[in-house]
Amino acid sequence: MAKDTFNGWVGKDLSAADGNLVWEAFTPKTWEETDVDIEVTHCGMCGTDLHVLKGGWHEPEFPYVVGHEIVGRAVRVGSQVTGIKVGDRVGVGAQSDSCLNCNLCKTDNETYCPDFVQTYDMRHKNGDRTMGGYADHARVPGSFVINLNPYPNVPSEILAPMLCGGVTMFSPLKRYGAGPGKRVGIIGFGGLGHYGVMWAKALGADEVVVISRSRSKEDDAFKIGATKFIATKDEPDWATKYGKTIDLIINTVDSVDMPLQDYLGLLAPMGTLVQVGAPDGNLPAFNPFVLLMTNRNLTGTCIGSRKEIREMLQLANDQGLKTWANPFPMSQVNEAIKAFNRSEARYRIVLVNEKNL
Amino acid sequence: MAKDTFNGWVGKDLSAADGNLVWEAFTPKTWEETDVDIEVTHCGMCGTDLHVLKGGWHEPEFPYVVGHEIVGRAVRVGSQVTGIKVGDRVGVGAQSDSCLNCNLCKTDNETYCPDFVQTYDMRHKNGDRTMGGYADHARVPGSFVINLNPYPNVPSEILAPMLCGGVTMFSPLKRYGAGPGKRVGIIGFGGLGHYGVMWAKALGADEVVVISRSRSKEDDAFKIGATKFIATKDEPDWATKYGKTIDLIINTVDSVDMPLQDYLGLLAPMGTLVQVGAPDGNLPAFNPFVLLMTNRNLTGTCIGSRKEIREMLQLANDQGLKTWANPFPMSQVNEAIKAFNRSEARYRIVLVNEKNL
Repeated sequence: MAKDTFNGWVGKDLSAADGNLVWEAFTPKTWEETDVDIEVTHCGMCGTDLHVLKGGWHEPEFPYVVGHEIVGRAVRVGSQVTGIKVGDRVGVGAQSDSCLNCNLCKTDNETYCPDFVQTYDMRHKNGDRTMGGYADHARVPGSFVINLNPYPNVPSEILAPMLCGGVTMFSPLKRYGAGPGKRVGIIGFGGLGHYGVMWAKALGADEVVVISRSRSKEDDAFKIGATKFIATKDEPDWATKYGKTIDLIINTVDSVDMPLQDYLGLLAPMGTLVQVGAPDGNLPAFNPFVLLMTNRNLTGTCIGSRKEIREMLQLANDQGLKTWANPFPMSQVNEAIKAFNRSEARYRIVLVNEKNL
Repeated sequence: MAKDTFNGWVGKDLSAADGNLVWEAFTPKTWEETDVDIEVTHCGMCGTDLHVLKGGWHEPEFPYVVGHEIVGRAVRVGSQVTGIKVGDRVGVGAQSDSCLNCNLCKTDNETYCPDFVQTYDMRHKNGDRTMGGYADHARVPGSFVINLNPYPNVPSEILAPMLCGGVTMFSPLKRYGAGPGKRVGIIGFGGLGHYGVMWAKALGADEVVVISRSRSKEDDAFKIGATKFIATKDEPDWATKYGKTIDLIINTVDSVDMPLQDYLGLLAPMGTLVQVGAPDGNLPAFNPFVLLMTNRNLTGTCIGSRKEIREMLQLANDQGLKTWANPFPMSQVNEAIKAFNRSEARYRIVLVNEKNL
């Protein structure tokens, strides 16, 4: 059988991460009756996209088509796929497959399945490379395609980046009990942090505290749900002043140079700090007493399950939650990359494939 | 009112930690009607006793009477004390008081109450110093005195060290779900670790894995309940060979020089490592991916609540659990300290106050 061909923005060498993707044909995975072909209308730009193109985690394996915050229209649906029909608005996040059989998969923890397949930069079960959504089409195993019809109030340009960035914050908040009676802290107010604030507020947390270095984003933080803003640069005594006042902290900081012990000290006894930022190196060492004497917990999560994605979208749909939109025509992807690299995103860039709208 | 006087083994200077306690009179806290006086029959020797006498955590405040694994007979019971009458066999662990009023206290987490009072080396609410159990008598707030009558199958020389050492292991096992379906790991097989193995087995864990450097204590480990023994010195590939095979690890190692990242790697996804060993310094730095990609948890606990002490003793009573006894007459406390310092304890030394038996 002849291989299918899709068209998309292909990263061909290390210059891709500087805004040098090339529009050309690429080969998607071999079709299986468990797959869905998506005509891509929107794809969020995630920090991971550029990190992978740069070879940040491992030697890059060009050519790449990146993008794992995909929204579009189902245009071909395998005979073994359930819950999706041609024409449905659908989405895919950073995970495209798992074993579907282990205890983790069976308990909505497929994110931690050893057979986790990333939406790009990995191999499908059949051995073909995974290719992402900076493209006209994406081919994805149907069990990881989310039917978006139940969420009509969430526009695609707002929804797309929720599929990775959004759920990366929603999952830890949900797993560790953000809600009434809980004081939540979000460290860093950027592409991840702003979602944390919005979800924590929507989930009913008593307090939503942003911890940031400067006050530059304070107004935005309050607009989207923060109840308190700590600018560590302005309050040198922040660690003692606010010690033991937060029940659950989600830490988006991805620098190895951060005051982790002081962050942990912000937690009330039995509180939890969830690391979601992924530094390129070790976390700073800290004194174990900060955990022992108060039964504090340090953990980490990675994106979120399909169940969590659906819960998150339902919440956004029901409460009419919206972040700021930063759309770029997909044809201008290289300009979008340059804007991303200049840290201009407030707070997630979304590529809009206008010809597929 | 004249101050009462008790007699006990008093640490008067830094030589105390080398086996130079002196038998003499000391002043207990001023009597309140919330107190219980205990005629001490047994007192366990805990590493903390010597650490405090050495000034390990802070400048020592001589004179000291240490000892916080106390068993004896109630000989005076304040009019406001409930649940204890003169003549009862009673015990006290490392905690002697808390606020009794906060949410932590009300949810059986009094161990993490900010007003935690240690059985020695601290101040009672009335400002008097706390004094421990290397003595003929101890005076302790009644709300922290455990009535031991319900546990007749547990002899005092076995029971005493359970009140700190034992519950330090029981608490994390219980809190993090050791039991059927769980594979439990205990790192270090010593004065804490051997309890971890015994409790994990008694709680019904599927596997109880001891992780130790050498095989020197392997026989004892199997005798008390281990199902597997990993000697890291003998298996250089232990970290990869046994990676992701344990659900809950209790880490008793108190050296800063330990392979923490490899220990975390032993955890299955969503597993928890509880640090109970208290190094004099920072934990080694580790890569956050060991938490993020698998939703592993790193936490710490400190002794255990009164509820946990009672549950532990009930378990020991019902199953007839016994550790090895290492009794020393209390009159030979200085010899006992020297034996402790030579690491001869297998696994907890207990001072027996023979004249009070």
